[in-house]
Amino acid sequence: MSGEADFLRRLRAMVVDPAARGLMDDAALLSTSGEQLVLTSDTLVEGVHYLPGDPAETVGWKLAAVNLSDLAAKGATPRACMLNYTLASDPLWDAAFLDGLGRALDHYAMPLIGGDTVALPGGPRVLSLTAIGTVPIGEHVPDRAGARPGDILYLSGAVGDAGAGLEMLREREAEPESLIDAYRMPRPDLSLGHALAPLAHAMMDVSDGLLIDARRMAEASGCAVEIERIPLSADYSALHGLSVASRLAAATAGDDYVLLAALPPETAPLKGLVAVGRCVKGAGLTVVLDGTPVTLPDRLGYEHGPGQSASADHS
Amino acid sequence: MSGEADFLRRLRAMVVDPAARGLMDDAALLSTSGEQLVLTSDTLVEGVHYLPGDPAETVGWKLAAVNLSDLAAKGATPRACMLNYTLASDPLWDAAFLDGLGRALDHYAMPLIGGDTVALPGGPRVLSLTAIGTVPIGEHVPDRAGARPGDILYLSGAVGDAGAGLEMLREREAEPESLIDAYRMPRPDLSLGHALAPLAHAMMDVSDGLLIDARRMAEASGCAVEIERIPLSADYSALHGLSVASRLAAATAGDDYVLLAALPPETAPLKGLVAVGRCVKGAGLTVVLDGTPVTLPDRLGYEHGPGQSASADHS
Repeated sequence: MSGEADFLRRLRAMVVDPAARGLMDDAALLSTSGEQLVLTSDTLVEGVHYLPGDPAETVGWKLAAVNLSDLAAKGATPRACMLNYTLASDPLWDAAFLDGLGRALDHYAMPLIGGDTVALPGGPRVLSLTAIGTVPIGEHVPDRAGARPGDILYLSGAVGDAGAGLEMLREREAEPESLIDAYRMPRPDLSLGHALAPLAHAMMDVSDGLLIDARRMAEASGCAVEIERIPLSADYSALHGLSVASRLAAATAGDDYVLLAALPPETAPLKGLVAVGRCVKGAGLTVVLDGTPVTLPDRLGYEHGPGQSASADHS
Repeated sequence: MSGEADFLRRLRAMVVDPAARGLMDDAALLSTSGEQLVLTSDTLVEGVHYLPGDPAETVGWKLAAVNLSDLAAKGATPRACMLNYTLASDPLWDAAFLDGLGRALDHYAMPLIGGDTVALPGGPRVLSLTAIGTVPIGEHVPDRAGARPGDILYLSGAVGDAGAGLEMLREREAEPESLIDAYRMPRPDLSLGHALAPLAHAMMDVSDGLLIDARRMAEASGCAVEIERIPLSADYSALHGLSVASRLAAATAGDDYVLLAALPPETAPLKGLVAVGRCVKGAGLTVVLDGTPVTLPDRLGYEHGPGQSASADHS
């Protein structure tokens, strides 16, 4: 069986949702009953968004996870997704990719309903997923622009692990595994996004770095943001320490896929959240660690300009 | 201004639909009020689905058109789309691509609401569009599988023009321009799709070749298909004649983006349709031209197997 035929057979076997029409039709068909649709799409490019040596299973998982992270940030329930896939003449890789993708889609209950597969033997692989989520009509879908002075800023987890994991992979280090795992297999928290969305004045996922993403929230909201705490994992701080430099590295590394939410100060504490700062009147970003203002690093995270290799997510 | 920043500025300027949230958020937001969503996605790869020398405007148009053709085949009204784009360090090309894409999206009233842009300086370009259309709840959305013995098969236009145009481009011929235009700028007929969908037992767009797509409809529907007429354009027949070989070449070329519909025999004639055959009991495809059965060519159109470069559309 050819690689492409084998891939399509595996793909079709993954598809059980009736919306997909068995992947045999020109289009997928999804019924809605008065919902808000949340749509997001992310592309991973081999050598840019993942390392050529990353196990294919983890690339499949990550492609789903980065999109699910955007759904989490809007409080959406995953409903369906479409895969656009380039086949690079490596059937074992393709099969492992589908295993990892399928595991994530099962875990988060997001059925695959369509897409397109193209042969691109020379690579690099260009892998896109478009995710569709729903929010009941009338429920608040937070954007980045609603934060107000007085809001407390919360993170749903530590930052820096994925960046440290990427650095370890580049330097061929294998321990602690948890950091490599954070880089390869982000685990967005859809339940927490669900719980936060109705309460949050603004919410986004941290994908380019805490500092740059917090500054984007401040700009979109027309207020200033003060970051006063940068939560680190035990493994990260064991490896890199708790110095200001270590914390700033964690806050600018990106690929965290945790939630950043601006909540009104009267909000009751929610499990899984760490207060990291506040919104105040004014503009811009300041960082105060251990009570001392910190000079901002030149690079706050991934920006989309010359020489940058990150992607410019426009949804 | 960097190429990427310039591209994103142009892209944002194209976006006016509120669902896009200005392309500044993690996700787009679309309200529905009890509709059926039709979702389709197609990827065009440079050198595979279009020629590297094709004007960028026409590539942008074509990316929209091939997806709109799938919406037409389901009788859907275009509602929104998401673009996944690789930037290949050629800002003039990117700007022209957006012009052509924007012209198609304006023409067919399908707003761009999101996507992802990634830098891929070495190329080849990998360009995906995911299109979202709607059909009111309760209205029939035809698939490929509903054709019944006795149905008449109709085409919404001539076949073969695009294939002849591609051949001309490969041989550096420039006349007749209409054939090159058919290859580069397909014009799916959304209104006709709309009118046909409630009546059609089965419908699909012809993208891989009339013969192979008709056979797919026959297989999905569990009946046999007889093709008795292969409609050609005046320019195609002036260039290639009306021989059986010329007609079979047209029916296996692909890239036509016309509609193939199976309608019950009592359906009143619809403007713009040409009867090309019928569904009968049995299985498989037969072609009878000028009253004489024709031996089927080995290649009925694009198949997705070894050595094929076409894409396997799975939505």
